[in-house]
Amino acid sequence: MAYELYYWAGIQGRGEFVRLALEAAGAEYVDVARQSGGEQAMMRLLTSEGGERVPFAPPFLKLADLLIGQTANILLYLGARHALAPADEAGRLWAHQLQLTIADFVDEIHDTHHPIAGSLYYEDQREEAKARAADFVKSRAPKYLGYFERVVERNNAAKGHLVGAELTYPDLSLFQIVAGLRYAFPRMMERLEASHPRIVDVHDRVAAHPRIAAYLASDRRIAFNRYGVFRHYPELDEAKRRRTIKQ
Amino acid sequence: MAYELYYWAGIQGRGEFVRLALEAAGAEYVDVARQSGGEQAMMRLLTSEGGERVPFAPPFLKLADLLIGQTANILLYLGARHALAPADEAGRLWAHQLQLTIADFVDEIHDTHHPIAGSLYYEDQREEAKARAADFVKSRAPKYLGYFERVVERNNAAKGHLVGAELTYPDLSLFQIVAGLRYAFPRMMERLEASHPRIVDVHDRVAAHPRIAAYLASDRRIAFNRYGVFRHYPELDEAKRRRTIKQ
Repeated sequence: MAYELYYWAGIQGRGEFVRLALEAAGAEYVDVARQSGGEQAMMRLLTSEGGERVPFAPPFLKLADLLIGQTANILLYLGARHALAPADEAGRLWAHQLQLTIADFVDEIHDTHHPIAGSLYYEDQREEAKARAADFVKSRAPKYLGYFERVVERNNAAKGHLVGAELTYPDLSLFQIVAGLRYAFPRMMERLEASHPRIVDVHDRVAAHPRIAAYLASDRRIAFNRYGVFRHYPELDEAKRRRTIKQ
Repeated sequence: MAYELYYWAGIQGRGEFVRLALEAAGAEYVDVARQSGGEQAMMRLLTSEGGERVPFAPPFLKLADLLIGQTANILLYLGARHALAPADEAGRLWAHQLQLTIADFVDEIHDTHHPIAGSLYYEDQREEAKARAADFVKSRAPKYLGYFERVVERNNAAKGHLVGAELTYPDLSLFQIVAGLRYAFPRMMERLEASHPRIVDVHDRVAAHPRIAAYLASDRRIAFNRYGVFRHYPELDEAKRRRTIKQ
């Protein structure tokens, strides 16, 4: 039986973290909202008067009677079911802990362009966005990226992974973080990647995974754009560096 | 063996969601940072050069060799271990999904007073905070509270609980949300509580739980203050209602 993934058509957004896990697992799934009539089906589930366990927001995943919401929760489920997480309890909790830290990072990335209200346009909060993004570029992004760099470094089981010796769902999500930040904050990433080789290595290994490589080359991968979590507004990225003029 | 809880001394913060679960379970625990030398011990664990699995931030919970970070992840663990979550997989995932939605709500509550940067004082982002809080009071808080009201309403197993017929960790967290919002946004809550009787009922049942009642009356419960997630700044609450003058 195929999974049904419910997420907004037209953006990667938080749904992309689920797509990457489904693709890496080779799982059969339908990206419901991208089908004809799919967004209406999603809205029916979200506003369902009959349902007992209704999600707060997309993404959510359906398999027969089981309806799972919250990105990290979906990955907790898929990780256990498709060997994308360690089998032991301590390892499973550690993978989930990293995923929840990635979720916090994603929230902060989102709020660089929407610091006041998700219901307002970016243009109506641009000045506040500049202030929030300046702190993000200077402090928050280096703090998170430095943390994940150290996690990869300290993983005694293998190089190139956050957890253990195999691909796990936090690796897939870290790939998406690196790819998304390259799109949204190219100047910041140009500066930070040199000092964070291990997370770039995780990114590259995920990108080279045969199923992920096939996915990224397919039309199932939506391009980054200015509607998702990762948005490229040059005024939010760090300033261009001036050449130092030698005297 | 007693649990060791590591969280900032002096505030409820995100650690309070863990304290409530430990207290409801009747578990033996040490609130490490509130002991002499405890904050230093916490910082050593956070900055440890030797550790392989180091948390990003407090709270974290230690039991022998197991070190678990991220509030919702700690509750996932405690919920299974102390019967504060359903035993079946679907119920366990549903409880965790609700907890992650509460975590999102907590993030938004925090950002009402810190919309630009956690590293800046409130006073340095007061105008932006007013704009963000206005949206929170008008849209976001009613959306979340309305959602949880409907979840309690639709829980077919019992009245007065989010999940199933017994107390679970999301109930404890919803209690904390109601208590915290009453402290931080009293005028907003005065308006909203009348139309959300079911979440007030969950709050009241948790407060009357013998172990929680004993905890709340003890000095282990830190008072709300202007350093935690829930902060009372009258200028962020909704405006006082004017009496309508009859003509």
